[in-house]
Amino acid sequence: MLDLHGGNVYRYERMGKDNILDYSSNINPFGIPQMFIDSAKENFDVLTKYPDPDYLDLRNKIAEYNGVKPENVIVGNGATEILFLYIRALKPKKVLLLAPCFAEYKRALDSVQAEIEYFPLEEEEDFRLNTNRFIETMERNHYDLILLCNPNNPTGTLIDLETLERIKHCVEEKQVHLLMDEAFIEFVEKWTTKTGMLLQSKNIFVMRALTKFFAIPGLRLGYGLSYNLDVLQKLQTAKEPWSVNGFANLAGLTMLEDKEYIHKTEVWIQEEKEFMYQELCNISNMRAYKTETNFILLKLFTLHARDVQERMLEKGILIRDASNFKFLDHRFVRLAIKNRDSNIKVLRSLAEIIEERGEI
Amino acid sequence: MLDLHGGNVYRYERMGKDNILDYSSNINPFGIPQMFIDSAKENFDVLTKYPDPDYLDLRNKIAEYNGVKPENVIVGNGATEILFLYIRALKPKKVLLLAPCFAEYKRALDSVQAEIEYFPLEEEEDFRLNTNRFIETMERNHYDLILLCNPNNPTGTLIDLETLERIKHCVEEKQVHLLMDEAFIEFVEKWTTKTGMLLQSKNIFVMRALTKFFAIPGLRLGYGLSYNLDVLQKLQTAKEPWSVNGFANLAGLTMLEDKEYIHKTEVWIQEEKEFMYQELCNISNMRAYKTETNFILLKLFTLHARDVQERMLEKGILIRDASNFKFLDHRFVRLAIKNRDSNIKVLRSLAEIIEERGEI
Repeated sequence: MLDLHGGNVYRYERMGKDNILDYSSNINPFGIPQMFIDSAKENFDVLTKYPDPDYLDLRNKIAEYNGVKPENVIVGNGATEILFLYIRALKPKKVLLLAPCFAEYKRALDSVQAEIEYFPLEEEEDFRLNTNRFIETMERNHYDLILLCNPNNPTGTLIDLETLERIKHCVEEKQVHLLMDEAFIEFVEKWTTKTGMLLQSKNIFVMRALTKFFAIPGLRLGYGLSYNLDVLQKLQTAKEPWSVNGFANLAGLTMLEDKEYIHKTEVWIQEEKEFMYQELCNISNMRAYKTETNFILLKLFTLHARDVQERMLEKGILIRDASNFKFLDHRFVRLAIKNRDSNIKVLRSLAEIIEERGEI
Repeated sequence: MLDLHGGNVYRYERMGKDNILDYSSNINPFGIPQMFIDSAKENFDVLTKYPDPDYLDLRNKIAEYNGVKPENVIVGNGATEILFLYIRALKPKKVLLLAPCFAEYKRALDSVQAEIEYFPLEEEEDFRLNTNRFIETMERNHYDLILLCNPNNPTGTLIDLETLERIKHCVEEKQVHLLMDEAFIEFVEKWTTKTGMLLQSKNIFVMRALTKFFAIPGLRLGYGLSYNLDVLQKLQTAKEPWSVNGFANLAGLTMLEDKEYIHKTEVWIQEEKEFMYQELCNISNMRAYKTETNFILLKLFTLHARDVQERMLEKGILIRDASNFKFLDHRFVRLAIKNRDSNIKVLRSLAEIIEERGEI
């Protein structure tokens, strides 16, 4: 598990590094909504009961937030549980996967011995999806499942709704399942007009998490959305009981109501992603890829990702060495986007390392 | 999911019943250890990080509590995750299962299409294991896995260490896996001298939870113990990352240190299970089975379990209709054991219902 993901500050703390600024996982810098903290402090007794096995209140709240019905919602112990449940319930034999992508997709697919075909997001195309080639590939072959992350991790690229419409028509015509991981969609400008759920297709299953936007990776709350009640029922049948803990349940009920937190986050990310991108463009010996969300992929021209990660760690900052993503290599690192003060610290440290070493 | 388990007070609350006294799930009445509540209130920031994917500190603490090494420990989102992981990792084809037993065993085994053979705990033998017949059955047939719960839910019966020794020799000789669910063992008098881990066998895997003893069914923390590192590695490989949430992690670190809470619970249960049993023996038209743990099985002579459950609910008490346990029927209900005041209330209500109706 150690090298698959960002966010493992524990390993470095065990090496004696304290107070690491974590730019390797992409978490909202505003921290946990105070509304939840207040509610949790008053409600420790929810932990002395088993959670509602049907999670009715939580599913109602999530349905309302997404403009769907509770029967379109399934909740999980983080989006990870939803991912593994979905893959185990559908047992796809052949899968088309956009890459580079999140490493857990492959682990989940491997658990059912699915054959994976990768559709590469090309460096020369700035990792944006080549729609025509993608549709062509889908039409020419038979897959049981298409899996894409939107916006995509680690590239930060977004597939727009018109393209998704085309993909939808194709999966419906060929009767293929489409799993869309929207873990980062709420960081996208006007995200509610861009989600796959707008396509209202029975072939589509959308995966979400409160992890990133509401800064609760340690609390574990994810969910799945679909208009396909048969698929949802399959997942429900395979699901372990009580997998969402009582505080995660409470978090869902309170956080999705916190309009102020949601609004300030939306304002912050639009401003800050622009700032980060512009500033990164001014650093020599690397390039930044335009992002639609709260992290940004960088290509290093002169240094190895591992070396840059190590030297950033010396300055107390953990960044994501992105070289183990499929189709990426030692030239790539990924940065989170956080608040202005931290971002400036990271930008300065990065410039020092990359520009100085690049000029030797 | 609705009818498989106790503890679903939500269903009755939705029917307008508030403040239900829950005797259907078997949770320590002392509630969550204060030591954890204090620590959690000070440490909400653990939720803003991903949990340590290796859970090193937690596994160290659990190892210390059980007198084993951290490499003998795997942690899960409740014992339920450990159960499903174990079954999916081992994929047993043929399984011998003591019954009546916890309903999730069958769900987990069904998920890998295992063939289940039930070994009945007989009513005429007060649901105690007939050791000779059990050993004979194991010797005569080939199983991939033997699954038993000790002490057993819902019968409250315990298999002693000598019998376990005999079972151990048999599973070792026949190279069979033995899964022991010890979810309730800490309520057993001098439990540390009675756990399956004392047998130090590579064929044995022990499953535990903090759920019941530390009153945190809503927080979700379970673990597996084994001397078989290959089996543990198989589970680790199949495991979803970060499945134990940050507060469950913190709970494990603090609660297992709370000697005072542990001691007062041990004193309470020994006294209270004796009291409950004696008092129940004084109620006519039913019998109570001797229990070694914190719940007690009752057989009704004149009324249906469903009717007694309904009439108890009218008095604000939820008990477990045990008729859907394998080999039990409409004559059986299960009661938790809680603090003296509540127990007296439950005993009185039960006597009113059973004795009155029985005499019509």
